[in-house]
Amino acid sequence: MAKLVKLKTVIRKMELVDLYKLAGIHLGLATEAYAVLRGEAQQEVQGVTENKYRDEAADAVVTTVEILTEVAAKAINKARGTYITIESPALRQPPGPVHLALSRLLADTLKNVFAKIGLEAAAPVLVVGLGNWQATPDSLGPKVVGKMFVTRHLLQYAPGVLPAGTRPVAALAPGVLGITGIETAEIIAGVVSHLKPGLVIAIDSLAARNVTRLYSTIQIADSGIDPGSGIGNRRTALSRAEMGVPVLALGIPTVVPAAVIAMETLNSAGQRNRNLQGELGPPAIQAIISDLLAPFGGDLTVTPKEVDDLVTRTATLLAQGLNLALFPQLSPEDLAMLSA
Amino acid sequence: MAKLVKLKTVIRKMELVDLYKLAGIHLGLATEAYAVLRGEAQQEVQGVTENKYRDEAADAVVTTVEILTEVAAKAINKARGTYITIESPALRQPPGPVHLALSRLLADTLKNVFAKIGLEAAAPVLVVGLGNWQATPDSLGPKVVGKMFVTRHLLQYAPGVLPAGTRPVAALAPGVLGITGIETAEIIAGVVSHLKPGLVIAIDSLAARNVTRLYSTIQIADSGIDPGSGIGNRRTALSRAEMGVPVLALGIPTVVPAAVIAMETLNSAGQRNRNLQGELGPPAIQAIISDLLAPFGGDLTVTPKEVDDLVTRTATLLAQGLNLALFPQLSPEDLAMLSA
Amino acid sequence: MAKLVKLKTVIRKMELVDLYKLAGIHLGLATEAYAVLRGEAQQEVQGVTENKYRDEAADAVVTTVEILTEVAAKAINKARGTYITIESPALRQPPGPVHLALSRLLADTLKNVFAKIGLEAAAPVLVVGLGNWQATPDSLGPKVVGKMFVTRHLLQYAPGVLPAGTRPVAALAPGVLGITGIETAEIIAGVVSHLKPGLVIAIDSLAARNVTRLYSTIQIADSGIDPGSGIGNRRTALSRAEMGVPVLALGIPTVVPAAVIAMETLNSAGQRNRNLQGELGPPAIQAIISDLLAPFGGDLTVTPKEVDDLVTRTATLLAQGLNLALFPQLSPEDLAMLSA
Amino acid sequence: MAKLVKLKTVIRKMELVDLYKLAGIHLGLATEAYAVLRGEAQQEVQGVTENKYRDEAADAVVTTVEILTEVAAKAINKARGTYITIESPALRQPPGPVHLALSRLLADTLKNVFAKIGLEAAAPVLVVGLGNWQATPDSLGPKVVGKMFVTRHLLQYAPGVLPAGTRPVAALAPGVLGITGIETAEIIAGVVSHLKPGLVIAIDSLAARNVTRLYSTIQIADSGIDPGSGIGNRRTALSRAEMGVPVLALGIPTVVPAAVIAMETLNSAGQRNRNLQGELGPPAIQAIISDLLAPFGGDLTVTPKEVDDLVTRTATLLAQGLNLALFPQLSPEDLAMLSA
Repeated sequence: MAKLVKLKTVIRKMELVDLYKLAGIHLGLATEAYAVLRGEAQQEVQGVTENKYRDEAADAVVTTVEILTEVAAKAINKARGTYITIESPALRQPPGPVHLALSRLLADTLKNVFAKIGLEAAAPVLVVGLGNWQATPDSLGPKVVGKMFVTRHLLQYAPGVLPAGTRPVAALAPGVLGITGIETAEIIAGVVSHLKPGLVIAIDSLAARNVTRLYSTIQIADSGIDPGSGIGNRRTALSRAEMGVPVLALGIPTVVPAAVIAMETLNSAGQRNRNLQGELGPPAIQAIISDLLAPFGGDLTVTPKEVDDLVTRTATLLAQGLNLALFPQLSPEDLAMLSA
Repeated sequence: MAKLVKLKTVIRKMELVDLYKLAGIHLGLATEAYAVLRGEAQQEVQGVTENKYRDEAADAVVTTVEILTEVAAKAINKARGTYITIESPALRQPPGPVHLALSRLLADTLKNVFAKIGLEAAAPVLVVGLGNWQATPDSLGPKVVGKMFVTRHLLQYAPGVLPAGTRPVAALAPGVLGITGIETAEIIAGVVSHLKPGLVIAIDSLAARNVTRLYSTIQIADSGIDPGSGIGNRRTALSRAEMGVPVLALGIPTVVPAAVIAMETLNSAGQRNRNLQGELGPPAIQAIISDLLAPFGGDLTVTPKEVDDLVTRTATLLAQGLNLALFPQLSPEDLAMLSA
Repeated sequence: MAKLVKLKTVIRKMELVDLYKLAGIHLGLATEAYAVLRGEAQQEVQGVTENKYRDEAADAVVTTVEILTEVAAKAINKARGTYITIESPALRQPPGPVHLALSRLLADTLKNVFAKIGLEAAAPVLVVGLGNWQATPDSLGPKVVGKMFVTRHLLQYAPGVLPAGTRPVAALAPGVLGITGIETAEIIAGVVSHLKPGLVIAIDSLAARNVTRLYSTIQIADSGIDPGSGIGNRRTALSRAEMGVPVLALGIPTVVPAAVIAMETLNSAGQRNRNLQGELGPPAIQAIISDLLAPFGGDLTVTPKEVDDLVTRTATLLAQGLNLALFPQLSPEDLAMLSA
Repeated sequence: MAKLVKLKTVIRKMELVDLYKLAGIHLGLATEAYAVLRGEAQQEVQGVTENKYRDEAADAVVTTVEILTEVAAKAINKARGTYITIESPALRQPPGPVHLALSRLLADTLKNVFAKIGLEAAAPVLVVGLGNWQATPDSLGPKVVGKMFVTRHLLQYAPGVLPAGTRPVAALAPGVLGITGIETAEIIAGVVSHLKPGLVIAIDSLAARNVTRLYSTIQIADSGIDPGSGIGNRRTALSRAEMGVPVLALGIPTVVPAAVIAMETLNSAGQRNRNLQGELGPPAIQAIISDLLAPFGGDLTVTPKEVDDLVTRTATLLAQGLNLALFPQLSPEDLAMLSA
């Protein structure tokens, strides 16, 4: 009997996955996409592993999800690869001592990924800030680019100023398709073929399913950027296959799609009311949501009121962690001076 | 039997009103608050009248709701007074010929209100932009202030430059309580006692219940600003009783609270599924919503992605309408030149 | 003979003062205005005293100029009072350890002034940010206001949250005459009569004569704000006489008027070429400069290219120093958390 | 005798050119660079032609300077090519009827250049906004990019929406070397090799010698962008030789270098005082200026106070003219709607 209930829940959950697909909602976080797939029953999914540990100093939980097979990738609607999330409620608080620990945890995590990829100490790196700097929740990437310590031109035009072995780092915020008329991947591919970096790091704002994840989670993915995983309508992938070099994606959830809030409301109501489960099928749910969100539809997002502050703060932390990981020979104090 | 169903719907609707109150949600638009109260059954509410007409040139519907009694004011959760809404989907489109018609319709509507209030042609007017210019959806008021044609100082320091009889207009965006530590009404009261204007016009961003109202509706209310009707947490009223002079409130809905999206989802599900109605009472709904929106709670709002453009465009239109109404002796071309 | 040369230089310098007056240029810094008056001959001026000391930790020179008589005030074109400048080239560098020392030096200097004024530990303080947040070099005041730790409303609505004895602080950026139509002093007077603070602290961008002073000097003046000493066209004074409570002015030079660059060029040429001195009198100099700067005239200012960064950085430092001085019971770490 | 005086003036003028070169000042406007070379004596320079006409409706003077030989190019410090300037004081006034005429004059001028280059009606065009959007006077290029009607992606993803024959237009604001670590020309070259446009149009803020030119002059140059002609430190050329396709440069002077104001002051004093001419040679002038502008040196610029408004207004006009020229099948009204 307990088994039956479980099965029913799983079926309902699978419908939720289908609904997400129907609504064209692409969750940015692998842990969330995986959780939706697993359901409350927490049943394991073949081809996916998940590990967690806690970092006390940073008040953070670090979760590593590996999507190992194509079948699992399809089910979970994310590319194969390793997805690391650093979750800490401190991320959305005003800067304090925990933030230093968080930027160090991020730097250490990135250094591990660099080692795994085989990135050499002086290999050039290109940081790409995806998104639209004029739309606050989509401006995370451009803001991080503005706070990076960029060295490529200094090493070229003012050699000797920086310590020997300093990594050449370039950074670019190419803008969004609606403004440029050019796919971001097209612009980056041109620059990559010219700069020949050892690694591309792409920063993006992500869409989350759960409000608690907003501005509290950093995801690092070695699979690059999925088309459509960000909050803007990115249509093409930014991945090793396309770029010819490894691509690391770094993102923070900045919005929950309004359609997800509506779906999760029904999901939650369904859990409290068994009758609802049978009667409100996907077509009815679709109809309710599209009525509710017209005339804006998928363009409606849920954000906290203090979004301007939250994006600025989290961009600063991402840039600090990146700078620490990319320039191990410089102290945090030097980097604060150089990239302020 | 049909009567019974009606009654049931009305009862459920009344619960919705209570839920709004419980959740501390204060709808900015009187037409919406009135609609919630009336329910689908569209039954009349004593002490409230509603009239509509269509303006073809502006592709707009103009609705006037009058809340005549204290009992009605309490039920509808809005102060007694006249609330005029101008609704046009064109408002959120890029500027075009309809916008000229819309700004004229707004100016004519305002002139009628001025006449009703008995505002003299050369009486000074103080325009107040409520809200926080650093939080995009709350920046409508400050943006309008920035686009007003301000004349008070010109008439004082450069007399003769403006046509005889030009109205002295001043404008102020005092900032929000969280930044100033001072209630907006306290600041304005000080300025009003010094300037002694014939009228205060307060501009505010409003919270709507329905996504279709976002950036498509202008509300003009002679009752001033309710505490809490805007999207920021305004705690004190800005009304004739407080200021000693008539206060006109001008607002545009720029957000739907995320809690309202969740409520309306359940409401909509309930209309499709009679079983749900009986079983999901206010406490369960409260629990679902507060779980869903933690840890941000009431600070989560739903906005369209292009919120930056939409606020700028609608602020321009409000300023044009206000300038046309306040300076009848200046042509639209002159005003465009003077206030650009 | 040496005496004669000295005298001649002084005379020429006096003409420079006259030229400044003719051109309507009002130097914001008392040390500069005093230096112009003294001339290279460094002769003393009756009714003015000047003292200097060096603070090593902050890499700063602190100069106190006291203007003691009305005659001296007229000659120097600044109100009677005490003017303290903190000069440090570190102020315009990216944040580093020196900045902590600088913010402490500023806090200690302010605390001394508070003691001299007799400001009680729990007396309310109103911080006023003068200037226009939309014009970068004039946005210092509004930026500082945005970074202040504001407590008045917390003490009122959430008593018990802050330590006992925390000072009520309010902050306001009222905007500029051209946008509001109202003199800043009129707005502030209304707020002061309502709030009854023990002190008003007014923050303003200043015009300097010397490029080296830009973003490297903080001036604290107990005489309040002179009309016209800021870079915007402030027309009325913000002083104890007007407000009924002590007014402290805090400013940083953010621009040099283009006309001053032109004058100083001629002045410098004159020092190298004795013939020039006799031949280029004030009318010729006036003509040269007004030809050169037409059609913008006095509205042309000289700013460093990185003005956006410099204003943000110096605003942060002013706010830190103010917060430290106003809230001695809170640690720098707490304040960084609270006002970030 | 008159001849001798003339000669002397010309010699002094040549020294001025040398001084400009010494100070590393690169005038953005060919008409100004040419005027400096010609001197007041207005003597002709071999290898350069100049033609002027007046457009009454736009209150504008259109000047065409052709630099025909390498010798002339060297003397004038600008690349060989055709430089058209449209000068109108109305450009810096608030928008009015003249602006419509100005945008049409700009569009007609551009269409003539397109015809001369042989640009086909449906050939793709890439618009590049040079400069730094965070530094107001350098943000003209990025602002124009934000106002362009971009069609490349619409033609690709939504064919049929636009009239047949609509030109594919893409637009990019790649950022500045100090932020990206990559030369703008390197980024553009990658994009050009991928997009293969028929023409690149590069928008840049220019440095002027004369204050009257600020925000009143548009320059169109078929020689592309000189390294260093903009106000930011552009180090590499953006020209047909580098890109493999024609490059049109479109610019507006937004600053006068502070060093130029100082030089012109001395120049003007010299014209009034013959003694000065012989005595203040280039080394003395150099010394005066570098003393005066330390510690910022060449990074000091002269701008009008209302720079934010002026850049926004002129960016709008450039975008309107470009849109009219690139999309002859669309009406001004359609374009206003589409690119607002």
